[in-house]
Amino acid sequence: MDARHGPEDRSSGGSKAVSKGGARPGEPAREPAWEPASERPGPPFVPGPLGPDSLARIDAYWRAANYLSVGQIYLMANPLLREPLRPEHVKPRLLGHWGTTPGLNFIYAHLNRVIRQRDLDMMAVWGPGHGAPGLVANAWLEGTYGEIYPDVAQDAEGMARLFRQFSFPGGIPSHASPELPGSIHEGGELGYALAHAFGAALDNPGLTVACVIGDGEAETGPLAASWHGNKFLDPRADGAVLPILHLNGYKIANPTILARMPEDELRSLLVGYGYEPAFVAGDAPGPMHQAMAAALDAALDGLAEIRAAATHGRRERPRRPMIVLRSSKGWTGPKVVDGKPVEGTWRAHQVPVAAVRENPEHRRILEDWMRAYRPEELFGPDGALVPDLAALPPQGARRLSANPHANAHRSHPLRLPDLRSFAVAVPEPGGARAEATRALGAYLRDVLALNRKARNFRIMGPDETASNRLDAVFEVTDRAWQEAILPGDDHLAPDGRVMEVLSEHLCEGWLEGYVLTGRHGLFATYEAFVHVVDSMVNQHAKWLKASRELPWRRPVPSLNILLSSHVWRQDHNGFSHQDPGFIDFVANKRGDTARIYLPPDANCLLCVTDHCLRTYDRINVVVAGKQPAPQWLGLDEAARHCAAGAGIWDFASNEGEEEPDVVMACAGDVPTQETLAAVDWLRRHLPDLRVRVVNVVDLMTLPSRAMHPHGLDDPTFDSLFTRDRPVVFAYHGYPWLIHRLTYKRTNHENFHVHGFIEEGTTTTPFDMCVLNRIDRFHLALAALQAVPRLGARRDHAEQAFREALAAHGEHVRRTGDDLPEVRDWTWPGAESLRRPPARLTPRRRDGIPPAPGAGSRR
Amino acid sequence: MDARHGPEDRSSGGSKAVSKGGARPGEPAREPAWEPASERPGPPFVPGPLGPDSLARIDAYWRAANYLSVGQIYLMANPLLREPLRPEHVKPRLLGHWGTTPGLNFIYAHLNRVIRQRDLDMMAVWGPGHGAPGLVANAWLEGTYGEIYPDVAQDAEGMARLFRQFSFPGGIPSHASPELPGSIHEGGELGYALAHAFGAALDNPGLTVACVIGDGEAETGPLAASWHGNKFLDPRADGAVLPILHLNGYKIANPTILARMPEDELRSLLVGYGYEPAFVAGDAPGPMHQAMAAALDAALDGLAEIRAAATHGRRERPRRPMIVLRSSKGWTGPKVVDGKPVEGTWRAHQVPVAAVRENPEHRRILEDWMRAYRPEELFGPDGALVPDLAALPPQGARRLSANPHANAHRSHPLRLPDLRSFAVAVPEPGGARAEATRALGAYLRDVLALNRKARNFRIMGPDETASNRLDAVFEVTDRAWQEAILPGDDHLAPDGRVMEVLSEHLCEGWLEGYVLTGRHGLFATYEAFVHVVDSMVNQHAKWLKASRELPWRRPVPSLNILLSSHVWRQDHNGFSHQDPGFIDFVANKRGDTARIYLPPDANCLLCVTDHCLRTYDRINVVVAGKQPAPQWLGLDEAARHCAAGAGIWDFASNEGEEEPDVVMACAGDVPTQETLAAVDWLRRHLPDLRVRVVNVVDLMTLPSRAMHPHGLDDPTFDSLFTRDRPVVFAYHGYPWLIHRLTYKRTNHENFHVHGFIEEGTTTTPFDMCVLNRIDRFHLALAALQAVPRLGARRDHAEQAFREALAAHGEHVRRTGDDLPEVRDWTWPGAESLRRPPARLTPRRRDGIPPAPGAGSRR
Repeated sequence: MDARHGPEDRSSGGSKAVSKGGARPGEPAREPAWEPASERPGPPFVPGPLGPDSLARIDAYWRAANYLSVGQIYLMANPLLREPLRPEHVKPRLLGHWGTTPGLNFIYAHLNRVIRQRDLDMMAVWGPGHGAPGLVANAWLEGTYGEIYPDVAQDAEGMARLFRQFSFPGGIPSHASPELPGSIHEGGELGYALAHAFGAALDNPGLTVACVIGDGEAETGPLAASWHGNKFLDPRADGAVLPILHLNGYKIANPTILARMPEDELRSLLVGYGYEPAFVAGDAPGPMHQAMAAALDAALDGLAEIRAAATHGRRERPRRPMIVLRSSKGWTGPKVVDGKPVEGTWRAHQVPVAAVRENPEHRRILEDWMRAYRPEELFGPDGALVPDLAALPPQGARRLSANPHANAHRSHPLRLPDLRSFAVAVPEPGGARAEATRALGAYLRDVLALNRKARNFRIMGPDETASNRLDAVFEVTDRAWQEAILPGDDHLAPDGRVMEVLSEHLCEGWLEGYVLTGRHGLFATYEAFVHVVDSMVNQHAKWLKASRELPWRRPVPSLNILLSSHVWRQDHNGFSHQDPGFIDFVANKRGDTARIYLPPDANCLLCVTDHCLRTYDRINVVVAGKQPAPQWLGLDEAARHCAAGAGIWDFASNEGEEEPDVVMACAGDVPTQETLAAVDWLRRHLPDLRVRVVNVVDLMTLPSRAMHPHGLDDPTFDSLFTRDRPVVFAYHGYPWLIHRLTYKRTNHENFHVHGFIEEGTTTTPFDMCVLNRIDRFHLALAALQAVPRLGARRDHAEQAFREALAAHGEHVRRTGDDLPEVRDWTWPGAESLRRPPARLTPRRRDGIPPAPGAGSRR
Repeated sequence: MDARHGPEDRSSGGSKAVSKGGARPGEPAREPAWEPASERPGPPFVPGPLGPDSLARIDAYWRAANYLSVGQIYLMANPLLREPLRPEHVKPRLLGHWGTTPGLNFIYAHLNRVIRQRDLDMMAVWGPGHGAPGLVANAWLEGTYGEIYPDVAQDAEGMARLFRQFSFPGGIPSHASPELPGSIHEGGELGYALAHAFGAALDNPGLTVACVIGDGEAETGPLAASWHGNKFLDPRADGAVLPILHLNGYKIANPTILARMPEDELRSLLVGYGYEPAFVAGDAPGPMHQAMAAALDAALDGLAEIRAAATHGRRERPRRPMIVLRSSKGWTGPKVVDGKPVEGTWRAHQVPVAAVRENPEHRRILEDWMRAYRPEELFGPDGALVPDLAALPPQGARRLSANPHANAHRSHPLRLPDLRSFAVAVPEPGGARAEATRALGAYLRDVLALNRKARNFRIMGPDETASNRLDAVFEVTDRAWQEAILPGDDHLAPDGRVMEVLSEHLCEGWLEGYVLTGRHGLFATYEAFVHVVDSMVNQHAKWLKASRELPWRRPVPSLNILLSSHVWRQDHNGFSHQDPGFIDFVANKRGDTARIYLPPDANCLLCVTDHCLRTYDRINVVVAGKQPAPQWLGLDEAARHCAAGAGIWDFASNEGEEEPDVVMACAGDVPTQETLAAVDWLRRHLPDLRVRVVNVVDLMTLPSRAMHPHGLDDPTFDSLFTRDRPVVFAYHGYPWLIHRLTYKRTNHENFHVHGFIEEGTTTTPFDMCVLNRIDRFHLALAALQAVPRLGARRDHAEQAFREALAAHGEHVRRTGDDLPEVRDWTWPGAESLRRPPARLTPRRRDGIPPAPGAGSRR
């Protein structure tokens, strides 16, 4: 299907190109023709699946999109070129990427054809999203743009606004963004198109996701791994993904690897990935249209056959069709500017001809270029597409720019089970031990079961679902797997709902694609290595921020990230696995997007997760350990505590009626345990020291309400942390985040925060705490040092403290394990029985709803 | 070369395996034999490149490494099993990864053979670095370990320590780490092995880097992209990389993609990546040894041919040899435990038999397993390897564990040019405009030229060297490129020293491999997308922290990261490209590793970069714009200013002899410009307001000396920022970082920080500042609001401020460009001429040396 050397080799933008009856590029037709489209000359006819009229019309449609693309990059007035181009018609700052755009427009026109012909439910993910001028142009041509943005309707005035708004203050960015209808994929950072496409296709058996991958993006790691998505996509229960690899040869300044490597190697690579590539290559429009039409027909026939075979029981993973489109960078654009070749070179990447206001010759090149598309044939006097071209694209929800999947149309809430079934019985605080994530696993199992029919919940993770002790989920589902399944394999099935691949990029990308098309999910991963997807989470947060500001965008189920195997229990893995910094990363995101929860025990983890699964438009980060640990709150207490976000734990406090001498605050499961052990230790050594224990579940209660919507109001904050008493704060992560969040609080000067200070190593769990001084002994010492009135008693207690530390250190170095009295410490329950259960701060207006409610954007 | 079904199918660890004359696994020989090694029975002989004696010896060596590996995971006493195994000989906590280890030991033994046979200069990168027991065992067998750690010498006492220290408090982690001699690659996070290997091979033409890639790691994005490193490695000027893909079938709980996909697809994939794979598969040791030996011989012959052909002028990129080793997970380990299959399944991933202290049957399995390696044949009574096995590995620097490249032996300092040649002439502050990165490009050009012969400096970047205006480097070098070079390509050559690929992962990974082997480099990239490599930078920082604590590790040239195209100049790209959070990420790293520089102009950028290129063991982050901007300091002033790290700019201050009314502080090029414009504006409206301008180049001057070695002492800090005057601080990144860094400073309560607050959009450069309130108007207003004594004059100035903002907003929305008086604003030079040049704080003890010096670990 190589059309490069077709019989009618011709390009529509180069100086040697001649089109029969049309204007010679470089000598544009100055008189509008307004001839009926059916008589409009198209490219010379070559035989193929398209008849002469279809070929002419698809070419005209392509020219219309190209025209509008150039207009967006260059013009701020005179959009239809009804008058000769003058400097003031041109934008003062020329921004945007032309290079990839004509190829995207070409693909778009051809996808339109097959959607209509086959009545396809198709959405598209455009990897080269910096070709936004083309994508916006197509949404405008389909009418979707004007429906959503009435100021930019399909008329002359709307076209003027369309051009002006592009990459202009108050307008739209030069990349595909949430403002683009039909898109779920930001076109800025490259690498995630194919993962997003697979995520969108999951559990959408009727959907075909066309995914255009630029040859620049194809060099990234995440994209290189994403091809293997076909090992997880079930031909029966999931939709189809049709990759279209668009080779235009160059990045910003370099050739691309995939375009320049020998074609036999490229074919071998793609076959190795499990695809059957069809190559469409050339720059003569006629042959290219025919070749692309034929390739798309064959690919869609192939997808239909795969689906039919799967429904008839075929088990082996099929080799899936894909298309390689090799076309010139800046196709149909200026061939030469200032004596230098542009089309087909890296110089066509952004603005192929610059300084157009200032340079008359450049202005002539621009005008010739635009007129070569013959706008007078394409747009009526009112600026709208002429009727027979307007009849080309699909209608209504079949339009790529209006496919409902791309606007999360399936985003109805999950059915969620009653938390009571999974609660860990806590007869008294500290009176039970449990693995928090194991309790969560049972809950997630029932979430999967309850939504089995809706097929709108998935769990993603880098091969750690069982390692993170969520394996109860395998009682009701399996791991998705399309390859052979061998004896001894553990819970693999083609339609499993747990997706495990050793790539955080794929897990995150799949989940993003899944939630952006309206479904729900959880990404469970190791805390230290979630930094792998920092940049992806960043881009998703930016997407949410921008999409939330668009009234026509439906809410997107939240991106839920469970961090287990966390910093405090990486003893044997050591320093390389110890990093709590993802919290800091997320805390930099806007308050309307980021949520960070540090449940202290299993029941709190259940409450927090249950809440997160009800939310929309959020990035929820939950940090929870998987090791056996003391349990503090019964389910009802946990629900109230999580709803408040932070509260005093009366069972552990002995302040009486007076203000406490010291507040022992904690956030995170291990810090909570160590804080309570410190309190126990203090109580034994200094029984009359008045201690208050405050536990923080929702980290975003700490900043002021102005900084974050979850922030406690100042009186509530002060009622927890006092206005003037020392606060010893044991925190899961880097200590300075607590300082940053509480910076404006009354009592901030008295906060003494203990957290991870990069003193990691290979050691025992408790010793790891000691090294970073969030262990019970250091916390107790910190309390002693912060309280002024202790005198000689402090010396005595400090002596005991030092002896305990020394004994611990000696034992650990000798035996390799923690002292039994440290490892097996339990909260002295008898005392707690004499007190009422946890006193909790009043529920905040926008706190976590303690009762199940409808979907929430909190 | 598939040995799975060889004529003598046999495995050494399974119950059905029988070895002639040896012990039947499961019925170990209890009497030590101490027979001479040459008579020692090996696996049944099968024909191949190895003679009978070689085969027996390589198998024995492999068994020795396996024995030591198991011992490390399990034992804390009785290392040679001279007495029956008792519970107290076993560690209380069993940690480590057995699954991959025997395969690594197998590869290690065979690499040893070819190193000796060919006298190869070879180093190895072990992707499955969690197989550290095997790698440590081999370093111990080679004697390197005992040379470095005399307590762990090759004797019985040393073996006991070797076992005990593994994954034990105060010992070594369960992953390959800096403590492992011969390694440049942390074995924790997966994905970077092959990029590191390519980085190490660059500019080391005599070196062969064997790179073992686990099938788990092979699923990651960075690894999937790394195969394309062959498009950049020059067969003539660079070394060779020999990938060994180790398929053992399973991750933690799942099969791996590459092991389970059909072999023809895998072969096609690897051929598509540009390799010629040889498959070695099976589990019978005899045939496997022969097959591996044959595959390695062929691969090394192939590499030698490639090199010879390249030196004789062959230009096309060769298809490079590689090996696919398919062996059982947990090969030679327990076949069945508690009735469940272990060897060859995912259950062999970590500790194949657990609860060994408690369970006598498990203890028997462990003892049988270890005795099946027949330690009595392998180790003499003194615990050392028996002599004829000790003669097997290479000697001295040829040992994989002692290859000097893996300890940065080429880490001599760069030759650096005189900065004067590149200085931007600044006749008076603000009296010149320049593009900072363009000046830097000229400097880097000369760095490249001066070190041309040493070939020890490279620039990496995702296709942005020219876009970031560093293109002067192309006057002396090209972009590395092994594919075809076509007319119109821009500065491509096989031996180019600029490496551009659209993958931040590859850029970072190559540079890490390059500096860890002792060479220097710079990674220049977009600020927003450097988050892609957060996790890699994190792991590198952890490596540096650990390696710096090892006296035998040589200093590693610093990892230098230049962030250009930064947050404040992403106007047309918009919100998705606006993110300064990498600074926060790096600021979380330890003070002995992280350095962050924000040079305000071109000469400062030159000074800072010149300094960074002299340092070792650091991660230096430099943020600098590429757009034309006012220049503030001449080179000498810049040198003094950068040496101090922060200082008062007298030319812009008018405080006179008194304390200023307000301190206007700034860090970053755009914030500096806006601060000076605000000062200009204030001076015009309130000429008697006493303003001090402080500029911060080295962000780590802000925290206390206790927090960071670059921290200013308190008196110096107070002399800059006063003890009680309001400080309006315009900062490049998220504002809270400044609060965090200055939290303990005297005057901190008076800091008003303006920075990026996620209010990004598509707009003009200045309008972007306005939205985030780091523009001149908001900064001036902040100053007015912070100074108490202004009264009615403030109202007047505020009125002017509001008018200016409104006029600006109206103009931008209408024209798409900034107001000319804003865009073209210049510092009123005449005033500055009346003042002495910048007053700078005294040079700190450990500040940036103003004069070129020797290599520094600062």
